[in-house]
Amino acid sequence: MSIAILFGGSSFEHEISIVSAITMQKVFKSTTLVNIFVSSDREFFLIEAKDMKSTTFSSGNYKKSKKLQLQKGGFVISGMFGDKKVDVDAVLNLVHGRDGEDGKIAALMEFYGVPYISPRLEACAMSYNKLYTKFFAASVGVKTLPYELLSKTSERKISIPLPVIIKPARLGSSIGVSVVKNISELEYALDVAFEFDTDVLIEPFMDGIKEYNQAGCLTDKWELSIIEEPHKVEFLDFEKKYMDFSRDGKVSSAEVSSKIEAGIQESFKKIYDPLFRGSLIRCDFFVQDGEIYLNEINPIPGSMANYLFEDFENMIDRLVKSLHTESNIKVDYQYIHSIQSAKGKA
Amino acid sequence: MSIAILFGGSSFEHEISIVSAITMQKVFKSTTLVNIFVSSDREFFLIEAKDMKSTTFSSGNYKKSKKLQLQKGGFVISGMFGDKKVDVDAVLNLVHGRDGEDGKIAALMEFYGVPYISPRLEACAMSYNKLYTKFFAASVGVKTLPYELLSKTSERKISIPLPVIIKPARLGSSIGVSVVKNISELEYALDVAFEFDTDVLIEPFMDGIKEYNQAGCLTDKWELSIIEEPHKVEFLDFEKKYMDFSRDGKVSSAEVSSKIEAGIQESFKKIYDPLFRGSLIRCDFFVQDGEIYLNEINPIPGSMANYLFEDFENMIDRLVKSLHTESNIKVDYQYIHSIQSAKGKA
Repeated sequence: MSIAILFGGSSFEHEISIVSAITMQKVFKSTTLVNIFVSSDREFFLIEAKDMKSTTFSSGNYKKSKKLQLQKGGFVISGMFGDKKVDVDAVLNLVHGRDGEDGKIAALMEFYGVPYISPRLEACAMSYNKLYTKFFAASVGVKTLPYELLSKTSERKISIPLPVIIKPARLGSSIGVSVVKNISELEYALDVAFEFDTDVLIEPFMDGIKEYNQAGCLTDKWELSIIEEPHKVEFLDFEKKYMDFSRDGKVSSAEVSSKIEAGIQESFKKIYDPLFRGSLIRCDFFVQDGEIYLNEINPIPGSMANYLFEDFENMIDRLVKSLHTESNIKVDYQYIHSIQSAKGKA
Repeated sequence: MSIAILFGGSSFEHEISIVSAITMQKVFKSTTLVNIFVSSDREFFLIEAKDMKSTTFSSGNYKKSKKLQLQKGGFVISGMFGDKKVDVDAVLNLVHGRDGEDGKIAALMEFYGVPYISPRLEACAMSYNKLYTKFFAASVGVKTLPYELLSKTSERKISIPLPVIIKPARLGSSIGVSVVKNISELEYALDVAFEFDTDVLIEPFMDGIKEYNQAGCLTDKWELSIIEEPHKVEFLDFEKKYMDFSRDGKVSSAEVSSKIEAGIQESFKKIYDPLFRGSLIRCDFFVQDGEIYLNEINPIPGSMANYLFEDFENMIDRLVKSLHTESNIKVDYQYIHSIQSAKGKA
């Protein structure tokens, strides 16, 4: 099995995507990895294994690597004597944030007929925008927290009692997110959030609420991770975030009742199937008074949440083997032929 | 001003996209048009003006045209002596149905930094799926008809009284759509719809309901078309559909009260701004008992609904001049530098 790790992108999470990709080098042991970097100005580079370290990117040395073009069927190295295809069984979309999670990479792979692990375009649109995530969750019978939506031009009035959490509608990794405990902090928190988006979601901030993460995918069977109770910190500073995206060790299961465990697994499956087929995602849930709420969908979790799975590498292998493609649409020009013959008769 | 008309695509509406594109040749009078055909197997061809006729495509003769590649900055013709860029002010996405309306073309243009007229990726996702259109409309305060959703695996039971209209969730141009008047027709109608999609919407079919179309866009100002009352037919056969996508004459305004006119315009603006900026769309509304309901969003209407506008060509010119691009994200590797220096200290 050979997999292309696609990482970088024009994204606020460009750098943590690099961290995720470097982590993958340790996680995959018997798979042949090909590393394809998307620079912040959206050019593709083939990065050799020895160069998969952060300095390659921060120094700009990646520019010395071979450039790739995306064409029908996959990535190619253009050369004097024609194009040479980069041969892989699938591309693993590891571009966090914009480009990767908003659906662009999925659209590119789909259009050019490249097998890929990633949420498809529609799944990306529904998870990238936290407002749409709420619509979608409701439509499949999964609860989310109550919320208000403010747009950049609307009046800055909220009716949810403090404390609240303020989130740009479209970003991940806690960028632009603030907790507001006093009304005096509201204006500034909104200014920060509107720096990143035209739409902002406001939700109640519940201090004691329990948080659980469930990752998984559907191969020829359901492959659900253990349930993790993440360490709760109000903000992740860079070292904590680095830790989060470079994890490759194992963690232990959260202590939850079998009822909550079953409820979380059930909610995960409702979210995942069928919209997220072809991807490995992590869903973050809140639990309060026995009720389960979806907090957010991580469509491309840091280091693919490998640390939550017993047998990550073989699962990815099974996922690649179960990838589906869009239905084939046969164009036979019957319609145009009919017009031509109708015109001929006239 | 020069515009590339992008048409074709891997779509059930491939052929009517060709009809739309041919119509554009007559509609644009002082604009330089470049015609880029996307074959049904998704290769790009530069079609010369003299070949812009349906036989070029139905005969397969388009394959003799120059092939194009999409690269950073635009389309290029690859040749012996390097790449030659196809120089245009903007691309007009005229791919109806899949590829064009589902967000793939938008993603490609956005990724490669090509100015383009089209709904952006998120707008495509919300209009391509009729269920999501309902969520979106509700979120901006526009009513839609009541509905039920059936998925391929769910029980085939409906509670909306007959007659109902059955629609695949994701297709346009009445493909797979049926009106069911007797319960005996239901099974077959659902079979047909599920041929095209895994999700099907069921809505009440209201025989006497009034239907009005409103097209428009936002340039440096609102540019709203006249309101049209389309000819109501239960099904469009190929000749009527051909008529619809090849229209270049003018039509007259529907006779509506100033209150309904203002209501339709208001609803259009709520749908359009900001999600559909950069595009020219047509919204189809129902009116009953003075209430306005969004029926559907046509994100890329047939022949761009040119026949509804007084001054189509100049409006497109203004639209091109007002196109926005994604915000630029500066990647400065500050985060990676911090990790490196933190590690250095350890």
